[in-house]
Amino acid sequence: MQTIDLNSDLGESFGAWKMGDDDSMLAIVTSANIACGFHAGDPAGILRTLRKAAENRVCVGAHVGYRDLAGFGRRAMNTSSEELAGDVIYQISALQGLAKTAGTAVRYVKPHGALYNTIAVDERQADDVIAAIKAVDERLILMALAGSPLVARARAAGLQVVAEAFADRAYTPQSMLVPRQEKGAVLHDAREVGQRMLQLVQQGTVTAVDGSQVAVEAQSICLHGDNPAAVAMARAVRETLSNAGVQLRAFIS
Amino acid sequence: MQTIDLNSDLGESFGAWKMGDDDSMLAIVTSANIACGFHAGDPAGILRTLRKAAENRVCVGAHVGYRDLAGFGRRAMNTSSEELAGDVIYQISALQGLAKTAGTAVRYVKPHGALYNTIAVDERQADDVIAAIKAVDERLILMALAGSPLVARARAAGLQVVAEAFADRAYTPQSMLVPRQEKGAVLHDAREVGQRMLQLVQQGTVTAVDGSQVAVEAQSICLHGDNPAAVAMARAVRETLSNAGVQLRAFIS
Amino acid sequence: MQTIDLNSDLGESFGAWKMGDDDSMLAIVTSANIACGFHAGDPAGILRTLRKAAENRVCVGAHVGYRDLAGFGRRAMNTSSEELAGDVIYQISALQGLAKTAGTAVRYVKPHGALYNTIAVDERQADDVIAAIKAVDERLILMALAGSPLVARARAAGLQVVAEAFADRAYTPQSMLVPRQEKGAVLHDAREVGQRMLQLVQQGTVTAVDGSQVAVEAQSICLHGDNPAAVAMARAVRETLSNAGVQLRAFIS
Amino acid sequence: MQTIDLNSDLGESFGAWKMGDDDSMLAIVTSANIACGFHAGDPAGILRTLRKAAENRVCVGAHVGYRDLAGFGRRAMNTSSEELAGDVIYQISALQGLAKTAGTAVRYVKPHGALYNTIAVDERQADDVIAAIKAVDERLILMALAGSPLVARARAAGLQVVAEAFADRAYTPQSMLVPRQEKGAVLHDAREVGQRMLQLVQQGTVTAVDGSQVAVEAQSICLHGDNPAAVAMARAVRETLSNAGVQLRAFIS
Repeated sequence: MQTIDLNSDLGESFGAWKMGDDDSMLAIVTSANIACGFHAGDPAGILRTLRKAAENRVCVGAHVGYRDLAGFGRRAMNTSSEELAGDVIYQISALQGLAKTAGTAVRYVKPHGALYNTIAVDERQADDVIAAIKAVDERLILMALAGSPLVARARAAGLQVVAEAFADRAYTPQSMLVPRQEKGAVLHDAREVGQRMLQLVQQGTVTAVDGSQVAVEAQSICLHGDNPAAVAMARAVRETLSNAGVQLRAFIS
Repeated sequence: MQTIDLNSDLGESFGAWKMGDDDSMLAIVTSANIACGFHAGDPAGILRTLRKAAENRVCVGAHVGYRDLAGFGRRAMNTSSEELAGDVIYQISALQGLAKTAGTAVRYVKPHGALYNTIAVDERQADDVIAAIKAVDERLILMALAGSPLVARARAAGLQVVAEAFADRAYTPQSMLVPRQEKGAVLHDAREVGQRMLQLVQQGTVTAVDGSQVAVEAQSICLHGDNPAAVAMARAVRETLSNAGVQLRAFIS
Repeated sequence: MQTIDLNSDLGESFGAWKMGDDDSMLAIVTSANIACGFHAGDPAGILRTLRKAAENRVCVGAHVGYRDLAGFGRRAMNTSSEELAGDVIYQISALQGLAKTAGTAVRYVKPHGALYNTIAVDERQADDVIAAIKAVDERLILMALAGSPLVARARAAGLQVVAEAFADRAYTPQSMLVPRQEKGAVLHDAREVGQRMLQLVQQGTVTAVDGSQVAVEAQSICLHGDNPAAVAMARAVRETLSNAGVQLRAFIS
Repeated sequence: MQTIDLNSDLGESFGAWKMGDDDSMLAIVTSANIACGFHAGDPAGILRTLRKAAENRVCVGAHVGYRDLAGFGRRAMNTSSEELAGDVIYQISALQGLAKTAGTAVRYVKPHGALYNTIAVDERQADDVIAAIKAVDERLILMALAGSPLVARARAAGLQVVAEAFADRAYTPQSMLVPRQEKGAVLHDAREVGQRMLQLVQQGTVTAVDGSQVAVEAQSICLHGDNPAAVAMARAVRETLSNAGVQLRAFIS
């Protein structure tokens, strides 16, 4: 039987500001990338999401980002290796303690936003993040963009890596994401998205923007939950997969 | 043989801004209260101080504070219980991870600045901090102001408590600190301060501002290191105690 | 003909986090208390709200707060006079420049959240805020809680003061707000709230929680816009007043 | 008679953290680039520096930076145009208000750190900063790196520009700064530095690292004041120029 992990970015509220529908998403996904306070997330709010994840037996990952609340971690930052490694260790560790308090544990690390995009290709910052993760716990898994150089680089460095695909994103004939600012980069039809992800799980391919079938090796699918339409699409993807007999479960038992 | 612990607030630089002489102080003290990022301390800088503490075999404590960089955690803040507990768990946990990376471990918690002063008397915030520490690890020790209601309260709640005296502060006939803004509250003579602390260790008393001898039950002495004069005084206290045959060592092996 | 000002707290989004429906509220109110970046509001977002306020010919005020994004400025902070005065001057000035760029100008100052509540009764912090406002521009008007000691204090210091009532709040027989945590403190019936505010404008009284009629001298009414129900209530209050022939306009031409 | 302006980065303390010796430097320079709170500077501290600048009749400029306290504004950040323009307007405006309170006024803008370096060559961010300055006040002068494309670009956009040289930096045969990480990039001999700056003022040239004489067109010289040696060098430069009959005065009366 085929299996796949569904993940989503959660815990991204900050104080009085709410973001996303964590409760709904925790009933849909099998893994939760939880903000660690640098791009989003205040400790009390993170703790609430962690408790809910524990209740739902959802696997927990540290969604580490650049220290940039005003930019939500979406702005590339030229941090030094010492700063970046320190920031990553700090964030993972803080989440570990909160998770323990909530009756769960951090099992993986998924960098957020600009850090995610940067380390997909920037070797220096990639190595800083890899070293930081290993310094905290070599058993932590890195979640990385399927098809990016980071996947092999992290594996070569000794980390276990889970590659992820994006449910609502178009792919190029080279198996890469169509840049977000390009037309057609983001898909809005929940039924279509569900079918694409079913094909991904069953055949290891997606239909690229030119109509060709391209290989995407992914052990997890990223779903969004920032608005009601996104939550509905996430639910539809889960149902399509589930109805087709795909087992939804985290990549770690 | 009599023993005493010497502690100091360290790791309080932030990015480009330096504070204190951590290297010198780590050769003087036996316990280091290390900032956790909320009132001071950036991860890379905290890590440097932790590594130096590990090298010097100095015991490490989490110096948790209010989230107030601009005020250096010195401004009383009316945080909710949920916020305060979350903030304390977050800070201790972050430091735990950094400490592990540096080859050491967090053994105690000493609240900083306005939080320290507030929980010495405010029962609600005291209980929030106590609960947070216990949630992280019941074996963590709380360092608290000698003579404050917090000492008994935390012990009643099941925490081990280390009471501390302040080397350079005058005491009232009621064994309390003379408020900092009052004349004569802060002592500047290193020789006098050393003798006072020797009396504290040997007899469990200090000479109060009215000349009376008052009991101060303390297992640790707080020393400052923010300027060269403070470092010199700290060194003098250590030497006075050491020369008198007092063993200087952390309250935990 | 009777006139009244309607005000609301706006510009309180921060980066990726949205709060309130500024566009809708700017079609309802006559004065906008706009966040200045310390409790909420990032410059780009503040600028968008200011431009919309200018378009709608809504009067602009500086909604200054404690430096506390994580607590949304709702936590009392024991700032020094020098810090508080500096923070208030900084925030008003920043908003003045953004407002000028948007084709409008800051005409008044309304402290936010915990600062608002604190200076209603704390004379030291009240004097710091008053001094800061006067330092920036003596013609700036202070918006303060109707019935609070601050109203007279600020007038005595030479500031023009606009007293405000809260549309959705219950009042005590002493003409004060029923504390928010008490039962019945917040009113939810839009029709009732509209009628209460009409009485306030026409007779200068509100019905207190014990059924008595108590005097509330107010030149402005505060409306909320943080959720659809609040916006609907704000619109209802405006319509009730408008239909009764009350002229809705800012306290300054 | 020849004249030159001497400028320095000041007001860069933050809360409990001190940086630089503003009082000494304000007796040496003729223009002060004062931090605006985003990379450094808290309002109360900025105000103290502004008052001292007013006393010393030193010209005041807004030292605007990226919103990055932890990185001291030294990390390149990929901000959007809307964010960057908003941040620059906000910072200049805040400083304008504080300056007015201190009895002086902001006359120019000097971007800080990574923003300074980025806009020297990045046209998009340069245009954002230029537009922001013009939006605040078209009479504000931009201080920019002598020889950088920004000088001509800002002039073409209608801004008055002051080009600056760096006293303690080596120059390439192409009249550019030797990158800081290269050997010999920073000069430490106060006498040599003074002579170089005298040549700059008198002949419009500096001796490049290859011994050639290269043209550097500058109306201001940047001096550092972050440590006692820097202050001593700044004083030496001033004396060398002054003794040679160069008039030291701001580029604006």
